[in-house]
Amino acid sequence: MNILVIHGPNLHLLGKRQPEIYGHQTLEDINAALDRQAAASPHDVMLKIFQSNHEGEIVSVIGGHINWADGVLINPAAYTHTSIAIRDAISTVALPVIEIHLSNIYAREAFRHHSYISAVALGVIGGFGAQSYTLALEAMIQHLQAG
Amino acid sequence: MNILVIHGPNLHLLGKRQPEIYGHQTLEDINAALDRQAAASPHDVMLKIFQSNHEGEIVSVIGGHINWADGVLINPAAYTHTSIAIRDAISTVALPVIEIHLSNIYAREAFRHHSYISAVALGVIGGFGAQSYTLALEAMIQHLQAG
Amino acid sequence: MNILVIHGPNLHLLGKRQPEIYGHQTLEDINAALDRQAAASPHDVMLKIFQSNHEGEIVSVIGGHINWADGVLINPAAYTHTSIAIRDAISTVALPVIEIHLSNIYAREAFRHHSYISAVALGVIGGFGAQSYTLALEAMIQHLQAG
Amino acid sequence: MNILVIHGPNLHLLGKRQPEIYGHQTLEDINAALDRQAAASPHDVMLKIFQSNHEGEIVSVIGGHINWADGVLINPAAYTHTSIAIRDAISTVALPVIEIHLSNIYAREAFRHHSYISAVALGVIGGFGAQSYTLALEAMIQHLQAG
Amino acid sequence: MNILVIHGPNLHLLGKRQPEIYGHQTLEDINAALDRQAAASPHDVMLKIFQSNHEGEIVSVIGGHINWADGVLINPAAYTHTSIAIRDAISTVALPVIEIHLSNIYAREAFRHHSYISAVALGVIGGFGAQSYTLALEAMIQHLQAG
Amino acid sequence: MNILVIHGPNLHLLGKRQPEIYGHQTLEDINAALDRQAAASPHDVMLKIFQSNHEGEIVSVIGGHINWADGVLINPAAYTHTSIAIRDAISTVALPVIEIHLSNIYAREAFRHHSYISAVALGVIGGFGAQSYTLALEAMIQHLQAG
Amino acid sequence: MNILVIHGPNLHLLGKRQPEIYGHQTLEDINAALDRQAAASPHDVMLKIFQSNHEGEIVSVIGGHINWADGVLINPAAYTHTSIAIRDAISTVALPVIEIHLSNIYAREAFRHHSYISAVALGVIGGFGAQSYTLALEAMIQHLQAG
Amino acid sequence: MNILVIHGPNLHLLGKRQPEIYGHQTLEDINAALDRQAAASPHDVMLKIFQSNHEGEIVSVIGGHINWADGVLINPAAYTHTSIAIRDAISTVALPVIEIHLSNIYAREAFRHHSYISAVALGVIGGFGAQSYTLALEAMIQHLQAG
Amino acid sequence: MNILVIHGPNLHLLGKRQPEIYGHQTLEDINAALDRQAAASPHDVMLKIFQSNHEGEIVSVIGGHINWADGVLINPAAYTHTSIAIRDAISTVALPVIEIHLSNIYAREAFRHHSYISAVALGVIGGFGAQSYTLALEAMIQHLQAG
Amino acid sequence: MNILVIHGPNLHLLGKRQPEIYGHQTLEDINAALDRQAAASPHDVMLKIFQSNHEGEIVSVIGGHINWADGVLINPAAYTHTSIAIRDAISTVALPVIEIHLSNIYAREAFRHHSYISAVALGVIGGFGAQSYTLALEAMIQHLQAG
Amino acid sequence: MNILVIHGPNLHLLGKRQPEIYGHQTLEDINAALDRQAAASPHDVMLKIFQSNHEGEIVSVIGGHINWADGVLINPAAYTHTSIAIRDAISTVALPVIEIHLSNIYAREAFRHHSYISAVALGVIGGFGAQSYTLALEAMIQHLQAG
Amino acid sequence: MNILVIHGPNLHLLGKRQPEIYGHQTLEDINAALDRQAAASPHDVMLKIFQSNHEGEIVSVIGGHINWADGVLINPAAYTHTSIAIRDAISTVALPVIEIHLSNIYAREAFRHHSYISAVALGVIGGFGAQSYTLALEAMIQHLQAG
Repeated sequence: MNILVIHGPNLHLLGKRQPEIYGHQTLEDINAALDRQAAASPHDVMLKIFQSNHEGEIVSVIGGHINWADGVLINPAAYTHTSIAIRDAISTVALPVIEIHLSNIYAREAFRHHSYISAVALGVIGGFGAQSYTLALEAMIQHLQAG
Repeated sequence: MNILVIHGPNLHLLGKRQPEIYGHQTLEDINAALDRQAAASPHDVMLKIFQSNHEGEIVSVIGGHINWADGVLINPAAYTHTSIAIRDAISTVALPVIEIHLSNIYAREAFRHHSYISAVALGVIGGFGAQSYTLALEAMIQHLQAG
Repeated sequence: MNILVIHGPNLHLLGKRQPEIYGHQTLEDINAALDRQAAASPHDVMLKIFQSNHEGEIVSVIGGHINWADGVLINPAAYTHTSIAIRDAISTVALPVIEIHLSNIYAREAFRHHSYISAVALGVIGGFGAQSYTLALEAMIQHLQAG
Repeated sequence: MNILVIHGPNLHLLGKRQPEIYGHQTLEDINAALDRQAAASPHDVMLKIFQSNHEGEIVSVIGGHINWADGVLINPAAYTHTSIAIRDAISTVALPVIEIHLSNIYAREAFRHHSYISAVALGVIGGFGAQSYTLALEAMIQHLQAG
Repeated sequence: MNILVIHGPNLHLLGKRQPEIYGHQTLEDINAALDRQAAASPHDVMLKIFQSNHEGEIVSVIGGHINWADGVLINPAAYTHTSIAIRDAISTVALPVIEIHLSNIYAREAFRHHSYISAVALGVIGGFGAQSYTLALEAMIQHLQAG
Repeated sequence: MNILVIHGPNLHLLGKRQPEIYGHQTLEDINAALDRQAAASPHDVMLKIFQSNHEGEIVSVIGGHINWADGVLINPAAYTHTSIAIRDAISTVALPVIEIHLSNIYAREAFRHHSYISAVALGVIGGFGAQSYTLALEAMIQHLQAG
Repeated sequence: MNILVIHGPNLHLLGKRQPEIYGHQTLEDINAALDRQAAASPHDVMLKIFQSNHEGEIVSVIGGHINWADGVLINPAAYTHTSIAIRDAISTVALPVIEIHLSNIYAREAFRHHSYISAVALGVIGGFGAQSYTLALEAMIQHLQAG
Repeated sequence: MNILVIHGPNLHLLGKRQPEIYGHQTLEDINAALDRQAAASPHDVMLKIFQSNHEGEIVSVIGGHINWADGVLINPAAYTHTSIAIRDAISTVALPVIEIHLSNIYAREAFRHHSYISAVALGVIGGFGAQSYTLALEAMIQHLQAG
Repeated sequence: MNILVIHGPNLHLLGKRQPEIYGHQTLEDINAALDRQAAASPHDVMLKIFQSNHEGEIVSVIGGHINWADGVLINPAAYTHTSIAIRDAISTVALPVIEIHLSNIYAREAFRHHSYISAVALGVIGGFGAQSYTLALEAMIQHLQAG
Repeated sequence: MNILVIHGPNLHLLGKRQPEIYGHQTLEDINAALDRQAAASPHDVMLKIFQSNHEGEIVSVIGGHINWADGVLINPAAYTHTSIAIRDAISTVALPVIEIHLSNIYAREAFRHHSYISAVALGVIGGFGAQSYTLALEAMIQHLQAG
Repeated sequence: MNILVIHGPNLHLLGKRQPEIYGHQTLEDINAALDRQAAASPHDVMLKIFQSNHEGEIVSVIGGHINWADGVLINPAAYTHTSIAIRDAISTVALPVIEIHLSNIYAREAFRHHSYISAVALGVIGGFGAQSYTLALEAMIQHLQAG
Repeated sequence: MNILVIHGPNLHLLGKRQPEIYGHQTLEDINAALDRQAAASPHDVMLKIFQSNHEGEIVSVIGGHINWADGVLINPAAYTHTSIAIRDAISTVALPVIEIHLSNIYAREAFRHHSYISAVALGVIGGFGAQSYTLALEAMIQHLQAG
């Protein structure tokens, strides 16, 4: 099971500033947790993790793993609401994709309520902070195993 | 940890018809899985599970467990998109609530893209079939434990 | 041919008030006419007739007749415009359904022009008063006979 | 009872192409069925039947029968959604009009959900194929008889 | 003067939770105040007071008092914004109705700014907490007396 | 001064029905009044008057008088709100056009508030019944004289 | 026949600036033309002419002539699109009102296409420059004479 | 308790015209009733009452009483729907304000359903004619007393 | 290869007026170019070319060539944006259709940005003047040859 | 260089209330700062400063300085979003105008995001408190000097 | 004739996956066809071909060829619907641009019906697969030759 | 005082083409002016200036200066209207940001009237050409000094 994990724009700064507000957990912490979860899995789970602030780079990474990946976990962050290119990349590779959000986007500004990604995703998990990622990895492993 | 599980309208028929299309898994199967998961938890997890086709009954059940429940898992089904009363019940009891969907509602008709519940929920998990429930229970247990 | 007839909210008051405006014809009169029409049919037509002011009850009645009914006649009244739950019940039972309206809803307030039910119904008949029901029963009998 | 029957644009091709999809029933077949129904009626029912692809011609036909017709059955087809001129013709002649649709227009593209005609019609019958016409003729005869 | 008082969904929990936020005043307190006000009135004022979380039950209660009530005070709560069935019940009984809100709904979320009830009500009073009810009872008594 | 006068759909029935409501004035009366006004003008005013229920015919008449007409008076009636083809005909012939309405279209249904014609017209006169035409003819004569 | 003529905001500057663009005709010229037209009328026409930049003043002038005026000619200028107060003043005095525009407002910015005044006016004349006023005075005289 | 009472545009004409329709009650009558109610109050209630057709004047009056008034009763009439300036005046003085309407604005034209004032008001009372004012004064006295 | 070419409303005037603006090229010139292109094709290309200002006539022509045509080139002109009837004619004959525009409709008024035809067309070519037609004929020939 | 400075509604109260929230800076302070800046300019800068709560007065002041002013600085406050009359006054005088806002209107309620003034202004400066004015004066001086 | 050809996001994967659905034709095949077409042209046609998944890169490529290119062929793919930056790049270089689409975007999801590019393009060709490119190259050569 | 200056897409071409239209002033000229202004400031102002056509690069630059910058001046150009990612970058670094536009975006196409950036900016300055930058730098220096 090869699983591609993509972190969208601004996520590289997670936990780097105002820890009293956003907490001390960094993207590195999340990635480490995912790696531990993959290693602990009874299934042979291989992760590749990317972060990019570039819409085009995310498109390229998705397309570039068309033959490697069995599934994709993506937190598209701001591009959730504006990127048809990432949506098309997902449609093109025709892989199962889980959309992840740290926050509950439906409880924020109205322009965050619409996702271009959801309609081409397998499912959506949002609002649980870092746990959104681990729940998603668990869901993907079960999905691939069942598939 | 007392967790209230609510299944919304039409879910009592799950798996009762056209199994070649919707699968053979029934609501009883989902409930049994949740019960097993609760029992297997290292935390003392107590579940109460309800199904109702009545918006008002769901409102009453939520309000009626204001002093019992520590958290609520709800699949509001069709009421997701039309019930402000259930939203208000959730706001009133001020408990952590996870919104669950069997299907990916964002890939269906436009009127299913808006949820009155999401904005007052802790988080949303949808698109994973019965697994949406077990992921949600796991998320709730972790949330209550961390809380 | 087992046909379920459902009258939605407020219809129990039909003919009970202001007969100089709405006429003297009551819901009982309509039901009696339907019973006579069923009895007079050369086909073996069995009717079950319900009236309910509760959205949830209508959902339950539809679901509860999943194995009995061959077709459903429904005048959803106000729930026409607000109930996705009833729409989902109809989709779930996968029976032929005819949507009935006493009045011409398209000639009334704008919020009555949209029906959540129509898109999952076999057809729509509206504007003919009590005759809307008898036309619908005739249409359903022919449909089931042809089916 | 003089009843004008109007078939709107493209209906002349009904049953002429792809019978495996649309069936073999032609407009001639529908007209013959209406003629038989009129002849079989205990009331003295006279029909005049027109088909036109021209909005203006339909306007003229309606206006031209202002003194002959007691009622109008019309399947406005595509003009249902675009013609205020036909609506105004109906308002001008002030005759009872029944709007007919072969298909369930509410289950098709969004632009077919709005009718300029419905608000000035007596009632609407749609979704029953050719039977929509015979139900409408029956409804009109009853309406005129009661009138 | 027979006056029906209806409390909509979630109002049974008023004052039951977070008194430091919402205050200690319960629905029972409001009802007692209304009863005292009725008793103190020089007019012969009789009250019947109901609370329900069910849209259908509220519809039934309104219809069921068609011959008893001279006026209706209703706080439809969440159903204000979603229930055409309650609106139709009010239209059907053709009684004077006053719409009540504890909070100023126009200062809250946009979806609370529209009321299906207002257009068929005599008037609207909102934003005064429990006093909204006593002002409404006073207004109804004056209205019935003047009528 | 050659002036083309065009009457749109349904206007041929003016005054032909329900004179107690719409009055006895017919299109022939309006045309006669315009002819008298033209004859009485100190300017050499020549009128050609057409009525058509066909959008295409109106388009053809406008285009066909590209070399004859100095100005156009048009009451597009229902086509006011639906015909881009007539708008384009006006743009193509590049003649001064006055849009006329018998009734005040802004006081009628919302769909009558928008005109495709107004933006390419010299001016608009509406709401004065038959006088709308005579005012328009006067305005056109003055415009052409000043031009 | 007492006719009130009201010029809305900014019209006092007409012809005062950029005559090469807007022409040399001033509001005084328009008023003089109206006075000559009134004097030349075989009917006993009395005019009172006001210009104001204040919405409130226009409201007061309309209300203040409730007992003097038989009709009102108004060019509401910018207030056409924003003033419900002027609309209400017109409704309150219940006099025939003609709405006038120098330019063709339907050929300008979208926000000028909607008029709060039109729906309560007798009719609308726009696009003819100063002639819009003289046509309107003529229309009002005929209307009052016919009335 | 110093209470400022503001009547918006066109209210000076109340009862001055068409008494058979609008009744004989004038603004002076309403003011007199308010004065009597203030005088009869066990609290020391001082009223200042203004009527203005000018948005700007209403803004000035509100601002000018920033140090005198303890509360404001305002019937903004037409400015309810168009005046952000009055809303800002209310926000600036930061006094409790009750919005009053004689009629039920929610049962009138759609553009009257939105109020710029409500969101910054304490509460809203509408639909009770002159009684709307006396209910509002009572509500304000209770509010100030409780405050 | 039988190809039907349809020119919509107002195109008969092309090049007839204001040649300094629109050029001297007429519809006859375009037709001649198409005929030359067809004759020069190595494939056996037969053209039938129609121009009509009538929506209904265009519907009839499309339907009337159901058995003759292998493909259709259509410049629907103004009917692009208003005709569902032409769309339905195209759907009914189920032939490959190319939509042509002389101008770039997306750079013009907003109401020209939507086409009822595009969704049922094979493809769209617009903005190249007369060349739009020759490109479309070339595209159709290649499509039919590949088909 | 003659520069007209206009302060819109409610600005006269600036700094008069709740200084702990809005600061102690009054409109007089801002005006004094502008006067000092004008005096300190190497260019011969003359200021006239007005404040008004009246839309009509602002229209009059702009029009009244058509021959005096070389440029206008305006903080339209609430009228930014509702006044077409002020927009038209600016268009009429055809002077360079800079729109000023104390606060960042784009970070406030949605109805404050649209300005009728911006489209006819030279530029916009907002969000810098009193400094918005001094930046604008500097910008205007540079603009006039460059012009 | 120097012509820049730009392929937008995800097009590098064309023909790389699911050939049974999308065909075996790759971007390299399209590029080779364009090169052959350029070489075969009697005009001296030079092509530069780029593909990029990055919006910013496409902006840079367009701007970077401001002095080299005589025309641009662009298939903006997903950026068609979201990129104002590419639109501005086209406006800035002020070169003739043809917008190309492989599929008929008007027959797909609603969000693909709007193009930010079309309004600044010379023309649009879409729906013909790889042939869209060769038609566009032909159109551009003719345009430049005629220019 | 460390101030980051960011120029968005297409600005690198400023003054490079059509100087008769856009002027000869290049981005280098603007940068030089800013450098001179910084050098001339009595405060210790350090500038870093970037231009990028890449949304992702702008996001990275903002995030990358989280510890260096005290304030940010940004002309987001086309990304103003489409980039939530840049908005989120600004929110993340929580620095004061001034949004700059060369042109008056509110006087251009409707899609340029909305800014995703404004709501998280300190203030907005637009419409003054290159001077927009120098005004913004002055405003930022004053803001930081006051801060």
